[in-house]
Amino acid sequence: MSGMDYAAAALELHRAHRGKIEIRGKVPVKTRDDLSIAYTPGVAEPCRRIAAEPEAVWEYTCKGSTVAVVTDGTAVLGLGDIGPEAALPVMEGKALLFKEFGGVDAVPICLDTKDPDAIVAAVRAVAPAYGGINLEDISAPRCFEIERRLMEALDIPVFHDDQHGTAIVVSAALTNALRLAGLELGAARIVINGPGAAGTAITGMLLALGARDIVVCDRRGAIYAGREGVSGHKAELAALTNPRGVTGALADALRGADVFIGVSGGRLVTQDMVRSMGAKPIIFAMANPTPEIGYAEAMEAGAFIAGTGRSDFPNQINNVLAFPGVFRGALSVRAREINTAMKAAAVGALADFAGDELSREHIIPGAFEPGVAEAVAAAVAAAARESGAARI
Amino acid sequence: MSGMDYAAAALELHRAHRGKIEIRGKVPVKTRDDLSIAYTPGVAEPCRRIAAEPEAVWEYTCKGSTVAVVTDGTAVLGLGDIGPEAALPVMEGKALLFKEFGGVDAVPICLDTKDPDAIVAAVRAVAPAYGGINLEDISAPRCFEIERRLMEALDIPVFHDDQHGTAIVVSAALTNALRLAGLELGAARIVINGPGAAGTAITGMLLALGARDIVVCDRRGAIYAGREGVSGHKAELAALTNPRGVTGALADALRGADVFIGVSGGRLVTQDMVRSMGAKPIIFAMANPTPEIGYAEAMEAGAFIAGTGRSDFPNQINNVLAFPGVFRGALSVRAREINTAMKAAAVGALADFAGDELSREHIIPGAFEPGVAEAVAAAVAAAARESGAARI
Repeated sequence: MSGMDYAAAALELHRAHRGKIEIRGKVPVKTRDDLSIAYTPGVAEPCRRIAAEPEAVWEYTCKGSTVAVVTDGTAVLGLGDIGPEAALPVMEGKALLFKEFGGVDAVPICLDTKDPDAIVAAVRAVAPAYGGINLEDISAPRCFEIERRLMEALDIPVFHDDQHGTAIVVSAALTNALRLAGLELGAARIVINGPGAAGTAITGMLLALGARDIVVCDRRGAIYAGREGVSGHKAELAALTNPRGVTGALADALRGADVFIGVSGGRLVTQDMVRSMGAKPIIFAMANPTPEIGYAEAMEAGAFIAGTGRSDFPNQINNVLAFPGVFRGALSVRAREINTAMKAAAVGALADFAGDELSREHIIPGAFEPGVAEAVAAAVAAAARESGAARI
Repeated sequence: MSGMDYAAAALELHRAHRGKIEIRGKVPVKTRDDLSIAYTPGVAEPCRRIAAEPEAVWEYTCKGSTVAVVTDGTAVLGLGDIGPEAALPVMEGKALLFKEFGGVDAVPICLDTKDPDAIVAAVRAVAPAYGGINLEDISAPRCFEIERRLMEALDIPVFHDDQHGTAIVVSAALTNALRLAGLELGAARIVINGPGAAGTAITGMLLALGARDIVVCDRRGAIYAGREGVSGHKAELAALTNPRGVTGALADALRGADVFIGVSGGRLVTQDMVRSMGAKPIIFAMANPTPEIGYAEAMEAGAFIAGTGRSDFPNQINNVLAFPGVFRGALSVRAREINTAMKAAAVGALADFAGDELSREHIIPGAFEPGVAEAVAAAVAAAARESGAARI
């Protein structure tokens, strides 16, 4: 199908079903006894147990399998600030994928406010019923503050998927791409275009995994301390990156680089730029729907490996490979957080999963390869136990 | 089964299933095309439509079939203020009944705050994804202010079930009981014990339906203007009720009365009190789990008709007869509110539904009689259209 066909089919599907998810019972309600056990008077007993021992909420309710998918509708897909109602189809889609791929029950929470204080207050208020919070499509740099404050306030995982889901999948793909290219992460010259939610988290993840030479670019080019327009979270990025003091435009930063990671938008990378890179260029052009450079174009210009966000080319770098397994693993041990060790474990599990059939056209599993979420979940749960984030 | 057995069975059920509800997909996600239609890139198209035309959210999402079941855990069953986590089994049970009886998707929202301002802010914030708000187990008198403020702020129905669901079912039962007794509502002497959420709403509903002689009692007895302890919402009740200026204890108020409605707690009504009432006493003793007077005891003392909240005696006055159909009807016309006309229509539909087999042991349908919610929904939808509350 073409993009036009997908759009028409999507309208038809969404209208025919009035959305994509529903709430279903897991227990019978066919007799008076059923009603007396699932509802009054029987239900009072699990209530009493939880009132007496708060941790029992994980035993007797859905909390342990349920996450909230929270958005304010400010950064939805490539559509921007379209508001909470218009964001709902994406949140329902996310909930659908959570269940289908991870067995996780996900509830869309579309917030009618853009004020970080109000968002933090609302999410704190609704948190008791959930085992985790997946933040979604909240614009940068507001998303950083909102996530940080919620992580401090809550004793369940808070995970902004646009940041960390993307960072996990990109890091796994890069791990395998570097393996095939015979390069070490610590020696690789990496250029990341786009200092938003995804770019910032990818930078953090790769640094945690051992990368040392990352240059982050915005529309004005390489980011470095003291450059005009470098303040706030860009200044924090500058302090952690660009050890060689690279200046100039994206084209300058790419000269001699080993890796391009695009999370920006616009057709910014030319074939000449690919040719200017190191011996085995690795190109992850993930802008949606139009990559920074097309897969075929990149390969033609000499890319050693290319990947995009699209499903119609090899090496689709897709968040669905991460979030279902990450939350499934975190929920399985009733984790208090999703920390760096757990994210790194997800990277390793994803990279290893593709490793069995590793090739330049298969550096990362496909979305429908069976067992991906289970492998990620097992690794995340083990890391949660080792790092002390697990309750059980 | 006995109460002890229900408690043990409930613990077992809740633990075995880890709660009672789940989120399920309504559309397939088995192929790459499925993913491209339900999620990116296809999902962008319904998002764009809603961004361009906000009312399209009812067409392309779950909003139109989904309600939030909101509590702060302050007045849960007979257990009192047990907090949001301990309230979750009741909210899941409610969601189960919403789906089973009304085909409505209900999402538990358990709020980690008791502050009315914060509750109103949180519910307003999460409202965009829902076609209605069912408030549940929020203590009086806070519930009145919270409901009023949310009704003013939101353009979807806000319905506190402990108030209005109870009022609808009691009013329907009373309609049929008075019919059998040959009494007119406008002439009946009615005593309501318990000026909380349920008692206040029952008073309002019966007055709207034409009752004129209602005496509301609290622990000190009949409520009237100027009595000690009569302020706030009790003063509002006093202004609307007690036209004969009855004073004294509950026993005094009951002397010569036609109807007792108990929504209080404690075994407050004796057989002598029943004997002191009018010729054909109607006794609705709905305190849970222990009624104000037992069914058999009331009948033995000469009650013409008795009803309780219990499923093991005739005439169970149970909210499950109302809320699934009320919301199903409201959602079916995308109602902006659930107004008095809609509630009165629900009362009439429920009373008529039992009317086919009306008897002193069957003044109200049983919870599992097929077609109850459908009949209530049809009446509520028609009233919404007539009263201008319907969007379609």
